[in-house]
Amino acid sequence: MARNLAQKLIESHLHSGSLEPGSPIELKIDQTLAQDATGTMVMLEFESLGLPRVKTEVSAQYVDHNLLQTDFKNADDHLFLRSACRKFGVWYSRPGNGVSHPVHMSCFGIPGKTLLGSDSHTCAAGSMGMLAIGAGGLQVALAMAGTPFALTMPKVMGVKLEGELPSWVSAKDIILEMLRRHTVKGGVNKVIEYYGPGLDKLTAMDRHVIANMGQELGATASVFPADSAVKAFLRQQQRESDFVELQADGGASYDEQETIDLSKLEPLIACPSSPDKVVPVREVAGQPIYQSYIGSSANPGLRDFVIPARMVEGRLVDDAVSFDINPTSRQLLEEISRSGDLGKLLEAGARLHQTGCNGCIGMGQAPASGRISLRTVPRNFPGRSGTREDQVYLCSPETATISALKGEITDPRDMDMDYPDFSEPDELSDMRPLLLAPQEIPTEVELVKGPNIEPLPDFEGLPRTLTGPILLKTGDNVSTDEILPAGSDILPLRSNIPEISRYAFCRLDEQFYDRAMQLNGDCFVVGGENYGQGSSREHAAIAPRYLGVRCVIAKSMARIHRRNLINFGILPLLFDNPGDYDQLEQDAELELDNPVGQLEPGKPVELKIVSANKTLSLRHDLSPAEIKTLGHGGLINETREEHPDIDR
Amino acid sequence: MARNLAQKLIESHLHSGSLEPGSPIELKIDQTLAQDATGTMVMLEFESLGLPRVKTEVSAQYVDHNLLQTDFKNADDHLFLRSACRKFGVWYSRPGNGVSHPVHMSCFGIPGKTLLGSDSHTCAAGSMGMLAIGAGGLQVALAMAGTPFALTMPKVMGVKLEGELPSWVSAKDIILEMLRRHTVKGGVNKVIEYYGPGLDKLTAMDRHVIANMGQELGATASVFPADSAVKAFLRQQQRESDFVELQADGGASYDEQETIDLSKLEPLIACPSSPDKVVPVREVAGQPIYQSYIGSSANPGLRDFVIPARMVEGRLVDDAVSFDINPTSRQLLEEISRSGDLGKLLEAGARLHQTGCNGCIGMGQAPASGRISLRTVPRNFPGRSGTREDQVYLCSPETATISALKGEITDPRDMDMDYPDFSEPDELSDMRPLLLAPQEIPTEVELVKGPNIEPLPDFEGLPRTLTGPILLKTGDNVSTDEILPAGSDILPLRSNIPEISRYAFCRLDEQFYDRAMQLNGDCFVVGGENYGQGSSREHAAIAPRYLGVRCVIAKSMARIHRRNLINFGILPLLFDNPGDYDQLEQDAELELDNPVGQLEPGKPVELKIVSANKTLSLRHDLSPAEIKTLGHGGLINETREEHPDIDR
Repeated sequence: MARNLAQKLIESHLHSGSLEPGSPIELKIDQTLAQDATGTMVMLEFESLGLPRVKTEVSAQYVDHNLLQTDFKNADDHLFLRSACRKFGVWYSRPGNGVSHPVHMSCFGIPGKTLLGSDSHTCAAGSMGMLAIGAGGLQVALAMAGTPFALTMPKVMGVKLEGELPSWVSAKDIILEMLRRHTVKGGVNKVIEYYGPGLDKLTAMDRHVIANMGQELGATASVFPADSAVKAFLRQQQRESDFVELQADGGASYDEQETIDLSKLEPLIACPSSPDKVVPVREVAGQPIYQSYIGSSANPGLRDFVIPARMVEGRLVDDAVSFDINPTSRQLLEEISRSGDLGKLLEAGARLHQTGCNGCIGMGQAPASGRISLRTVPRNFPGRSGTREDQVYLCSPETATISALKGEITDPRDMDMDYPDFSEPDELSDMRPLLLAPQEIPTEVELVKGPNIEPLPDFEGLPRTLTGPILLKTGDNVSTDEILPAGSDILPLRSNIPEISRYAFCRLDEQFYDRAMQLNGDCFVVGGENYGQGSSREHAAIAPRYLGVRCVIAKSMARIHRRNLINFGILPLLFDNPGDYDQLEQDAELELDNPVGQLEPGKPVELKIVSANKTLSLRHDLSPAEIKTLGHGGLINETREEHPDIDR
Repeated sequence: MARNLAQKLIESHLHSGSLEPGSPIELKIDQTLAQDATGTMVMLEFESLGLPRVKTEVSAQYVDHNLLQTDFKNADDHLFLRSACRKFGVWYSRPGNGVSHPVHMSCFGIPGKTLLGSDSHTCAAGSMGMLAIGAGGLQVALAMAGTPFALTMPKVMGVKLEGELPSWVSAKDIILEMLRRHTVKGGVNKVIEYYGPGLDKLTAMDRHVIANMGQELGATASVFPADSAVKAFLRQQQRESDFVELQADGGASYDEQETIDLSKLEPLIACPSSPDKVVPVREVAGQPIYQSYIGSSANPGLRDFVIPARMVEGRLVDDAVSFDINPTSRQLLEEISRSGDLGKLLEAGARLHQTGCNGCIGMGQAPASGRISLRTVPRNFPGRSGTREDQVYLCSPETATISALKGEITDPRDMDMDYPDFSEPDELSDMRPLLLAPQEIPTEVELVKGPNIEPLPDFEGLPRTLTGPILLKTGDNVSTDEILPAGSDILPLRSNIPEISRYAFCRLDEQFYDRAMQLNGDCFVVGGENYGQGSSREHAAIAPRYLGVRCVIAKSMARIHRRNLINFGILPLLFDNPGDYDQLEQDAELELDNPVGQLEPGKPVELKIVSANKTLSLRHDLSPAEIKTLGHGGLINETREEHPDIDR
């Protein structure tokens, strides 16, 4: 039977299950990646498994998030990660090498391989014919230990690209068009597979832009064929021998089907504060801006820096605008320095920052109060920039650059020049010598743990009867940035659960922590649609669990966060009837009898609203394996109890 | 009568007074500079004077300190400063242009002019025959208003440089040798004038290294002749027409005399945690390092980046070391990018940071717990790096670079290559187009004040009888970094006195703020020698004053801080007999009758130790004008009361 590419990638790694959408499957994982903000926990978790060395083909640890180093914590984390990499056979990419996703693609990406990463934008590597999935840290640690990765078999949405992009319209506008059409929930439980003649002029890095922000659609993964564009990319990275041609079988079909005529696209922009609030740039043109931000994993390619450089050549950026350039990688920075494009940016008034994730995750470059920031990054969730009442718009490098020159939001087609020609260089510098390679023979390495690196707390399983109040009720599309924010105050605490828990839900409710401390007992959280979208940070499950949250009830949940809740023993339940959401008010007292024991696939769950003396029928979508995990109180307990022989 | 250069510069700007060392003088100020961390207060103070426009030849405002932007505060400050510059006729240098001192030298430095700056390293411009002095912000605001600058006529120490530096020894080693010989108090109330044949091979930027760290000697200023090296520098900056030749008269003499034979110097290093704990590098060689830091106003020259680049060319930095490159200015970054030296650094594993002061002032790049950091910066006061128990060593770029390659402190003479040749390029890019120039015709500009920009509190004058406890007793050489720290948490609060006051003395005593709040009344602080050395931040006077400190008693005081105390109405008294320091214990209750009225030049001051029922005779060194200022309760009150016509 003819398979689409997503099915072929899944089938070739299927450890258990079938290709029937909605059924539980397990996949063999070839490669893993972690970044530092999630990676310290991954390494602590891997350490607790007691294995001498990872069992994957490639595991890599990047340091790209916690780069500000305003005190000892970040630097201590870097030293811990370096020591863990040496001990466990993981590649270590030091600060300054760049953002994990493009660097991993450049150094290790191989068509046809699976990649699991403790960063939600891991999916970017789908740009080169990999099946690349973001997950919670604990699942990445287990994948490093050789355990297959469990998920629900997704549907496959085929997106046929036709035509050719007009001048001043680029890859970012394609994914913004997808977000305009499908919203931040449109990709849930789907793999999005791009194909068609419109791919011909999209380089591997253009495709990275689209695959990366598949995460903003909520998709499990995005995949592109491994074709001549991927071959050219690997040749450029001096790794042509790693190329494998891959595409859908002739006559393959898709569960859903979509077509985009690229020639009809115009410059688009996502308005505050959701990546799917997309409108044509011309509709919001003319508003004065404070900042124009170039960089991040959502526009990581050389062309995303060179086109802006050629646009500003011989001109000056508006003197009221901060034009912030965030190079993706050491390789890219070397190249734009060598080519003279960096000079053009600097002469025009740009501010060059260190390579890394930087302002995209709220590590610096926060905009001024109430001022507009235009960014090429993937997300504009409220406050993620570091400024609480921020006004962040997402757009292409072209739109960001012309707006920097004009001082206001401007359609790049208003630029009084020809669209700059750009062609990729044949070869780029090899970054691998600057990664610390795993040693052939594992040596005795001691883990370096600074005073901020605390062990993971032990968590008990669910009680026989779960009672407690609804400590918080949220609206729709609450992101993990709102459940447990990033930013320069909070990210350095990622290795310290008691400390980071102080910030749980603080963006939504500054009193949450105090109320949880006062309650000092079990409680519930109620959410709307797409609860837990965004970043893969498992701290958004661990911190609430630490504060007593034992069950989350929502209309729907984002994939990675739902699984993180299960991993840390929090019961994820769903409204059988979305209208029941209105029946649960904050502070209402709830009771759930035999919370794990009553879970059976397909069966409803009975919830008592004690304060209203009512009963509500909820549903769940837990697999038998997930119910078993919850019965243990989480995946760490389960692993320990099922493998008591592991040396801890 | 033959004059030395310092005397000639002072004489040509003398508004009142004589050249007799120790006598009060007033100087006409031609130029001022401010950086952002002190500049927001300068602008608030200038605003309160009610003048439409500055009266100096050049006033410039740089943004080089608060660059991390972890929330809205820094960005709001930048917008406020930009609006104030436009309103008051001040040059505005946007973030990304670089560190104030080298940028000012490049854009505006003119031999023979006076420069007053609200940054202690303003003295760096003495490298080009200017009389450049650091001062508190309020005095800079008054200088912008055309008021002459009052100080004590300093002695002049002549330092004759002979011979030529050996390979691998550079300008930093000369100033470290001065610190080794004279300590952090050795330059107090002195101008240090360098002359002699050893100057021939020192460029203007080499001299900047030496003049800059004259501040670490406690000197009022450092001066170098304006000779062919300065002419070459101005030519390189496309400003040769601004050159004026200046040197000491033949047969001039000095109050003190010193000689350094450059050919005898070897690589030196200042150990934690004072710039004068200087030893030869070889004495501390072999210790493993975490960090090697290149940059700051203390090694701002092109050669300070190019020599490291050529040292690491084709090699890899030790993989345990963070090799942090902090470009001084946009001009320098453009140049090393163009020349390929940036590429050499990146290929070797360096991390490139944004242009600015950065880690030198604790804004990022903090070292790991207990690990050694080698830095080319001017200061290593305890905790200034951002890591509380830090181990910061100060050294030349050569020493920092070889140590990065080896992973341990290493004497650069161990480098297995010839000392790299370097010659300055004939011309560098002109940075002035990227500064916002004052408008010819002042326009109606509204000051942009974000929510963190609070007006300066009003302070009352001293009471008829001052009573209160010694709320803190400190040791010798307490720096303003210990009185009111910088760093990423605290620097963003520089426009908000109530908030920043929470951190007063926190490095010395975490309970100080709480005790002051509990006391809620007047109190004393007792210090040792050289109290208030280091940074010019007037917040180190304002915050204690806000918390009730009305009098500081010390063995000796650093010039700028002493004056800041007076400016904000805090009475600075001195022990007549240093041994009396032992008679004053923390918490002792003191009483000072008629604290201002009893002040007369040359007369002792009677202090009652109420708790011990004793009396102590103290002294003061206040001029009649300073006593008058204290009588008003500070310089702002005085200005308001003497000029009630000023529109506020």
